[in-house]
Amino acid sequence: MAANKGSEQQITPRAVDYARWYQDVVSQAGLAETSDVRGCMVIRPYGFALWENIQRVMDGMFKETGVENAYFPLFIPMSYLSREAEHVEGFAKECAVVTHHRLKAVDGKLAPDPESLLEEPLVVRPTSETIINATFAKWVQSHRDLPLLINQWCNVVRWEMRTRLFLRTTEFLWQEGHTAHATPDEAQERALLMLRVYRRFVEEWMAIPVITGVKTASERFAGAVNTYTMEAMMQDKRALQAGTSHNLGDNFARAFGTQYQSEGGKLTYVHQTSWGVSTRLIGALVMAHGDDRGLVLPPNLAPVQAVILPLFRKEQEAAAVREKAQEFRQRLAARGTAAKVDDRDTLSAGARFFWWEKRGVPLRIEIGPRDLKENQFVLVRRDTGEKSFHPQAALEETVARALEEMQRGLFDRARAFRDANTVRVETWSDFADAFRDENSAFVMARWCGDPMVEAQIKEETKATIRCVPFDNPRDDGPCVKSGRPASERVLFSKAY
Amino acid sequence: MAANKGSEQQITPRAVDYARWYQDVVSQAGLAETSDVRGCMVIRPYGFALWENIQRVMDGMFKETGVENAYFPLFIPMSYLSREAEHVEGFAKECAVVTHHRLKAVDGKLAPDPESLLEEPLVVRPTSETIINATFAKWVQSHRDLPLLINQWCNVVRWEMRTRLFLRTTEFLWQEGHTAHATPDEAQERALLMLRVYRRFVEEWMAIPVITGVKTASERFAGAVNTYTMEAMMQDKRALQAGTSHNLGDNFARAFGTQYQSEGGKLTYVHQTSWGVSTRLIGALVMAHGDDRGLVLPPNLAPVQAVILPLFRKEQEAAAVREKAQEFRQRLAARGTAAKVDDRDTLSAGARFFWWEKRGVPLRIEIGPRDLKENQFVLVRRDTGEKSFHPQAALEETVARALEEMQRGLFDRARAFRDANTVRVETWSDFADAFRDENSAFVMARWCGDPMVEAQIKEETKATIRCVPFDNPRDDGPCVKSGRPASERVLFSKAY
Repeated sequence: MAANKGSEQQITPRAVDYARWYQDVVSQAGLAETSDVRGCMVIRPYGFALWENIQRVMDGMFKETGVENAYFPLFIPMSYLSREAEHVEGFAKECAVVTHHRLKAVDGKLAPDPESLLEEPLVVRPTSETIINATFAKWVQSHRDLPLLINQWCNVVRWEMRTRLFLRTTEFLWQEGHTAHATPDEAQERALLMLRVYRRFVEEWMAIPVITGVKTASERFAGAVNTYTMEAMMQDKRALQAGTSHNLGDNFARAFGTQYQSEGGKLTYVHQTSWGVSTRLIGALVMAHGDDRGLVLPPNLAPVQAVILPLFRKEQEAAAVREKAQEFRQRLAARGTAAKVDDRDTLSAGARFFWWEKRGVPLRIEIGPRDLKENQFVLVRRDTGEKSFHPQAALEETVARALEEMQRGLFDRARAFRDANTVRVETWSDFADAFRDENSAFVMARWCGDPMVEAQIKEETKATIRCVPFDNPRDDGPCVKSGRPASERVLFSKAY
Repeated sequence: MAANKGSEQQITPRAVDYARWYQDVVSQAGLAETSDVRGCMVIRPYGFALWENIQRVMDGMFKETGVENAYFPLFIPMSYLSREAEHVEGFAKECAVVTHHRLKAVDGKLAPDPESLLEEPLVVRPTSETIINATFAKWVQSHRDLPLLINQWCNVVRWEMRTRLFLRTTEFLWQEGHTAHATPDEAQERALLMLRVYRRFVEEWMAIPVITGVKTASERFAGAVNTYTMEAMMQDKRALQAGTSHNLGDNFARAFGTQYQSEGGKLTYVHQTSWGVSTRLIGALVMAHGDDRGLVLPPNLAPVQAVILPLFRKEQEAAAVREKAQEFRQRLAARGTAAKVDDRDTLSAGARFFWWEKRGVPLRIEIGPRDLKENQFVLVRRDTGEKSFHPQAALEETVARALEEMQRGLFDRARAFRDANTVRVETWSDFADAFRDENSAFVMARWCGDPMVEAQIKEETKATIRCVPFDNPRDDGPCVKSGRPASERVLFSKAY
């Protein structure tokens, strides 16, 4: 419970300045802060505890599908990036390049030692398809070595000019899964399976509804055959791409010679997938559920699910109230609820309310001398602000039920918000209106399939095709921009 | 259970070539391999599963002492390294230096874009005292913000010329704890507390006995007031430094201005510690317990504690034997034992024995048609090779007892080996003999305290002072090298 210097500051209301509100919440909830290193963030303990919960749950879900963790080098030889023609276009641009391996004092000032110049520069991994294929090519010999189902949790670096905490930073943390299969069908199945895993996680644990679908060619991962995505609506009605899963076909296998000998003895390229989610999910969490009082955390992921505040005026009341608070904590812990007692006497009751409110703790439990007498306690829900009284004997069930209701409530609220802001648009003038100035929405409109038209729409409105949703019903009509015939609607939005 | 290409190869016996033996075990157990990137390793799934177990247990132990995890940037501005005078000497030498942030095609070949030259080069963290202090200086205002107890699990890079998997690699994984305290005493207590945590982990979980003590000035962490260490003996009688904990005093606080306002209102520099263990521990595990047949894992850390092999000759026996194997796995899993059934029909029984033996799995359980009839099973211990028969009804207790005995047995064996190879030496000629050619040992000898003498001993014998052990009894006599008076013995050894 280290002090947060922002703790006395106000949070800018969303309606006043949404971007400022986001920064304020991230800062005052103690999630992260900018560092002295351009574009790199410091993830503070509370933010990291959230990431640990995300990792723990997802890691278990990956392992259930047979995935194993491993670790591959941080550095990628520059030439590796060039091997896959599209990949180099996508990733060789903005990256951190290591050129020397020593510093030395020159005229009393430290500088890279010219004698330590590397023969081949190394790139700090922006993603690891290339370096991992260099290894997979050694691991895969026979059809018996397949499938290979590997994941790594690590840091990656993409040099970004404009950065925002969690949403876009030069260095970020993520997981990247990489699989190799004998057949195209198996790779396709795996790419879709992992998207389903992601969706289940984001909807059931983060309480964020998503639309899943396939990216258009222009939004596809550099080197992939197909990119599958899940798109979530934030409270400013913009889309956030919350995770992607790629069917890489045999593109990287051909570039790196990753081949297996089939049962018939024939050398065949493997078919591959890769899939990733990152600390960006924390940004999504903030923007999907937060309110003008700060963070609101879904109970399933909250590092602290219930904070217990012993409240009293007179010192002679303190002991009994504090004892009850500790008893509550133990009873809740025994049921697997992450509960914490806050009895700091350096902060007033009000200051402690605000402290936990900003941090989005789902439930606040208050106990005072009167509650002791009445054998009751006070329960306050973070999302609704609803305050209720309950018998102490029913503590465990009351808390469990409130957490469940809040988890469901957050999801329902986010889905209702998204549905209310999803529109079917037929004309270009309605389309342009939907994205005018700071406007955004999820717009379902027809598109003729021409990348030039897609680019033109983006230039004029800043809206991009987030995905062609799965299970899209056929819906013939004119393209919203070109008027040419189209057979289905795609999802447009401004995006993070 | 991906194929291991080394699986049919022999492991070089320790007596023939200890370094080769180590490489063979690491490779054939599927722990790690070299990558195409100079000095960087690929940690394979089985090696990573070990690291995950190490992380999980240690992370819990850290948190019990109040430590929280966070994450700090990978990159350190070059100038930060210079701020602490000794630190720059120790760490600015061999490191990866990022100088550019973009690649571009020049004459059709990729190269760092000259226009993307960074104003200030960035160093890939070799350790994070500097970048963390830049943040701590913001977090610490008042005495109420202390202590700060922070840890991060991450990758670090130290450019190494000669590398060996796990023991010395350019990139490695580790945890680094960083704490800030109001008083020198508190920092000293924390430094010692974390060394005790490390010791408990290494002795109770890894079954490796260690000698704890303080480093001499020449072996001290660059920038520390004192470095505490735990030293383990490997089977070639060399020492391996398994973890260190540093009392940094206020050296970094002064360099970065990390000050707090005391209750009296006075601005005071914090006192700090840092402490770390790395993937090197996996190298220690291999060298402490492995034998000529491969890895031997302490049960408490083994990803698979018991492998169950259904054995049969005739196909009509298969179903019953396999069913029993699955029943065993479930019964063991219910007791928290990590058990796995290996019924691959692509490998002979013998090949499967060797497979698990190389991987150091503590217990092998065999079940065949005759065992079914007799209501028994066969248990084979990896460390002793001991084979025994047990009633099926006693499966859980038998396995639990065997795992416990093996855990204790490994520790006892390692301690006996170390004690048998620890000698008290009085004369220089005996000292030189102890380290002649490939010889090594733990040599307790007197040293006069002169760093020049220490350096001379190292030059002549390659032996270094591993530590001045804690609770060292006073023992006056002449320095083993200089003959000058000394009052205690210190621990000398050749080291990894």
